Amino acid sequence: MAAAWWSPHAAQVVIEVAATAAFALSGVLAAARKRMDAVGVATVAGVTAFGGGTLRDVLLDRRPFFWVEHPEYLWMVLAISVASMLFLRGQHFRLTERAMQWPDALGLGLFAASGTQVALAASMPGLVAMLMGVVTAVFGGVLRDIVCNEVPAAFQDHRPYALCAGAGAATVVGMTTFGATSLWAWGLGAVMATGLRLLALAFNWQLKPWRHDAGGTGDV
Amino acid sequence: MAAAWWSPHAAQVVIEVAATAAFALSGVLAAARKRMDAVGVATVAGVTAFGGGTLRDVLLDRRPFFWVEHPEYLWMVLAISVASMLFLRGQHFRLTERAMQWPDALGLGLFAASGTQVALAASMPGLVAMLMGVVTAVFGGVLRDIVCNEVPAAFQDHRPYALCAGAGAATVVGMTTFGATSLWAWGLGAVMATGLRLLALAFNWQLKPWRHDAGGTGDV
Amino acid sequence: MAAAWWSPHAAQVVIEVAATAAFALSGVLAAARKRMDAVGVATVAGVTAFGGGTLRDVLLDRRPFFWVEHPEYLWMVLAISVASMLFLRGQHFRLTERAMQWPDALGLGLFAASGTQVALAASMPGLVAMLMGVVTAVFGGVLRDIVCNEVPAAFQDHRPYALCAGAGAATVVGMTTFGATSLWAWGLGAVMATGLRLLALAFNWQLKPWRHDAGGTGDV
Repeated sequence: MAAAWWSPHAAQVVIEVAATAAFALSGVLAAARKRMDAVGVATVAGVTAFGGGTLRDVLLDRRPFFWVEHPEYLWMVLAISVASMLFLRGQHFRLTERAMQWPDALGLGLFAASGTQVALAASMPGLVAMLMGVVTAVFGGVLRDIVCNEVPAAFQDHRPYALCAGAGAATVVGMTTFGATSLWAWGLGAVMATGLRLLALAFNWQLKPWRHDAGGTGDV
Repeated sequence: MAAAWWSPHAAQVVIEVAATAAFALSGVLAAARKRMDAVGVATVAGVTAFGGGTLRDVLLDRRPFFWVEHPEYLWMVLAISVASMLFLRGQHFRLTERAMQWPDALGLGLFAASGTQVALAASMPGLVAMLMGVVTAVFGGVLRDIVCNEVPAAFQDHRPYALCAGAGAATVVGMTTFGATSLWAWGLGAVMATGLRLLALAFNWQLKPWRHDAGGTGDV
Repeated sequence: MAAAWWSPHAAQVVIEVAATAAFALSGVLAAARKRMDAVGVATVAGVTAFGGGTLRDVLLDRRPFFWVEHPEYLWMVLAISVASMLFLRGQHFRLTERAMQWPDALGLGLFAASGTQVALAASMPGLVAMLMGVVTAVFGGVLRDIVCNEVPAAFQDHRPYALCAGAGAATVVGMTTFGATSLWAWGLGAVMATGLRLLALAFNWQLKPWRHDAGGTGDV
């Protein structure tokens, strides 16, 4: 049992639980900011946690979904929503967001790497597999922002997020092309995405803005 | 023929027509409030009427869609859109909304119960089947609000709607688990959801707000 | 080779490239107006270019997607996004929009006609096939506007766009019903949609507004 804890599979499950919880919590906070009711909070939490992988599976025509095979994750997201509404107060929000950065970055790496491998296993070309890895990691948050009637933060906050996922996905595709084992490709891809994200947060990297001065109705 | 009117199947068809019309009308009104043109009005009506069941079928990978098997429902929604634009004026809007509450509540029950049964028939676990029932009943309105660039009312108006659908869906799952016939499970599930919704409207039930005081950009 | 240029298939490829580029550029401009970052610009460009056909294929349960079979179109959209951010400035935006009207109208016709034929080939009834043609041609722009947190222009700007696509799709369905060859139905359907759109732009046709005076929260 102790040994199993250190197997790659067990590590993946631990990261998966932590990352899903972090994604769900970011949905809870976004819904709270929009003053949603209990139904909205739980729905947005679920959309954020499962939206990316579900969209990937719809595009790849792949069933069953992760949360159909493992309904215990649905219960977890439900529990997180209820617990948040019972115990979380406004003054905890900023703290919660900081505490979520680590599991969120882990999830970014994990979902980007495993999403890419799922697409490669479905015989997708390399660029499409990368895209699917990024969709898996990022579109939960994108759907969260669409449901909350906001421009998706992943497209507007000028901090590298999808790009880190893309670098991880490219690592997986590259290593697979050059014959690396599935486990190595997955591990290095995830480390690449998570590492870049943590570096981006630590050093406050910004995407260079596009100097177009087009006026427009930016929400910044 | 007279007898057929009172068969459960005929009753289902009558409720289905009334509920689809009510859903379509709520789409028409939402589009009108956004000053959409004829194309927008008809599209939002169709999205509201068919969006929930279509999303459920995409998630369950189930074809053909309801509106592909029965294109006469597409014609009905088109006719409702055109007739509304010809005859409905601003002063009728509030009246129309009140008149729609009954068929809308009937549709909530019908779609929640039959959506749950469709998912059970596709061997989904209980919690997922409940979720599919709620999606069938509620996500037409959610997609309507997303297309109209609003935070979905089902997540923000603090009146029980999805919860009533959930109670109906849970009834269907519970009764099916305990061996009830499909017809009984369906009937009691639908009555549960519709009844709770009508009680919620009659007594103005409210979901308790979450006291988090997080500031935020709520649209309330 | 010279002869191939003038074959219907070669013409279709040329129009397809021009139209996809025009759709992608309209996504680039919309993202720029929202001050999105590089990730947002490329994503919105891709959603606009491929969203309509992808949604149609999801609804028809059809794989592989166009952009999976032809990943070179993904590279093109990526190149357009990068080139725009390098070379396009605010003062070029209006000019670009005017220059895009022709390829956009060509794409409207092409995608409406071929989308309808794809649905007919999947044994859809006539009305559903028309709907799929319109979805193919119009929903890339609709998804673009949803991601950009705007009410879809196709539903609100009172200029015929989806209606032109619908006329083209109806032409395809009608001609196919009356035994025309696939090539003739496709060609005349596309010419009908593109021609109507160009006439609508030239003569500034407007959809008659619905006089309901319902107040509401229109964004006009």
